[in-house]
Amino acid sequence: MAEEAKKLAGYAAVDNHVQNNQVVGVGSGSTIVYAVDRLAERVRQEKLNIVCVPTSFQARQLILQHGLTLSDLDRHPELDVAIDGADEVDAALTLIKGGGGCLTQEKIVAGCAKHFIVIADFRWTDTCGSMTWGKEGLLGPGSAVPMAYVPVSRTIAKRFGGEAVLRMAVSKAGPVVTDNSNFILDWKFEHAQNWKEVNTAIKMIPGVVETGLFVGMAERVYFGMEDGSVRVRDPPVI
Amino acid sequence: MAEEAKKLAGYAAVDNHVQNNQVVGVGSGSTIVYAVDRLAERVRQEKLNIVCVPTSFQARQLILQHGLTLSDLDRHPELDVAIDGADEVDAALTLIKGGGGCLTQEKIVAGCAKHFIVIADFRWTDTCGSMTWGKEGLLGPGSAVPMAYVPVSRTIAKRFGGEAVLRMAVSKAGPVVTDNSNFILDWKFEHAQNWKEVNTAIKMIPGVVETGLFVGMAERVYFGMEDGSVRVRDPPVI
Repeated sequence: MAEEAKKLAGYAAVDNHVQNNQVVGVGSGSTIVYAVDRLAERVRQEKLNIVCVPTSFQARQLILQHGLTLSDLDRHPELDVAIDGADEVDAALTLIKGGGGCLTQEKIVAGCAKHFIVIADFRWTDTCGSMTWGKEGLLGPGSAVPMAYVPVSRTIAKRFGGEAVLRMAVSKAGPVVTDNSNFILDWKFEHAQNWKEVNTAIKMIPGVVETGLFVGMAERVYFGMEDGSVRVRDPPVI
Repeated sequence: MAEEAKKLAGYAAVDNHVQNNQVVGVGSGSTIVYAVDRLAERVRQEKLNIVCVPTSFQARQLILQHGLTLSDLDRHPELDVAIDGADEVDAALTLIKGGGGCLTQEKIVAGCAKHFIVIADFRWTDTCGSMTWGKEGLLGPGSAVPMAYVPVSRTIAKRFGGEAVLRMAVSKAGPVVTDNSNFILDWKFEHAQNWKEVNTAIKMIPGVVETGLFVGMAERVYFGMEDGSVRVRDPPVI
């Protein structure tokens, strides 16, 4: 049921936000697979002229496997829309990303898009960090330059509490190395915080490349719910 | 004469700010060579127990060539003092660095030091960016993740004016690649700005790893002047 809902969410994002002659950012993660399936289907059926910019090795492979047109930010620095997943989404549409380790490229691509649309699974919450995963392992404060991971992790713990842990690889001895040759720190934070301030403060630490906090970037989130339905969340009207 | 002044400035920095049993950050650049000479001399003569953390390949080689004790931020994440050069220094002790391309590692090491001491040559000015070099090629807004260099450079030009140019290598075909595998953008800005704000705004652009602006970090600057003298500049009392 949850898989079906993910699929519906991915389809809804592509159907509602992709049009002919667009440059589309393709995110990473399990929900994105459905979105790319649908995108390829529409390109074939409707003979759309679509150029795709990937956010990861996985996204690049998906684009190629589906016979879609691959590009990059050198050729297409402005995207019409980017579609990506998220690990957590709060009521203000702040996202926590980084589970898949591609947060830096994902944020770069999202930052180049006129519209940033998110697909998430049923983990619908009001507050980022209110869920177990958030407390247990989330917020890759992101890529840290390898030589800096010890001082960066100490600075985060000292300033914001909790613990920032080097993400270790499963299929090799040693840490996870990102597609940009950086390390990932998973910050186990103790409570929800002002994510805008935290995002700026963490990114400003010398040695931090990017954080997994996407603040004020998402325009709409499609949730695949456990009951198989799709729920839409827009940013609060201020 | 200028070389002699650089030497005097480097010696003054080491003599006034390095004591026994300290962890010392070693910067990069031409002025640093004199500082390391003096550091090695003092370690020999005074039998000092000093551990050195380098900011670059060059610094690491200098440490090893002088027989000094090499360490890193994993083992020594807190430094007592870091000594480094600067390309420009303004009256508020804001630095512009990045001429040597090691700005990211330099800022990481400086950020870990209790005291950050700078040696500069005679380019004593009141306003960063008032000099030709500043206008012509400075402020590596720093390491940008390679895939993002086009959108980052466009964003900088759009928001802050001027032009941000990919630094090309001289001894190979292609761009300069930093010790952390990133690219460098040299921002030719049009006029002096509020560097604290600009530093934050540029670093927050997705894809920017670090900027060459060191704001509020330097505690004291030793200038080797053209007439062979050394001038000291401390931050303004606010």
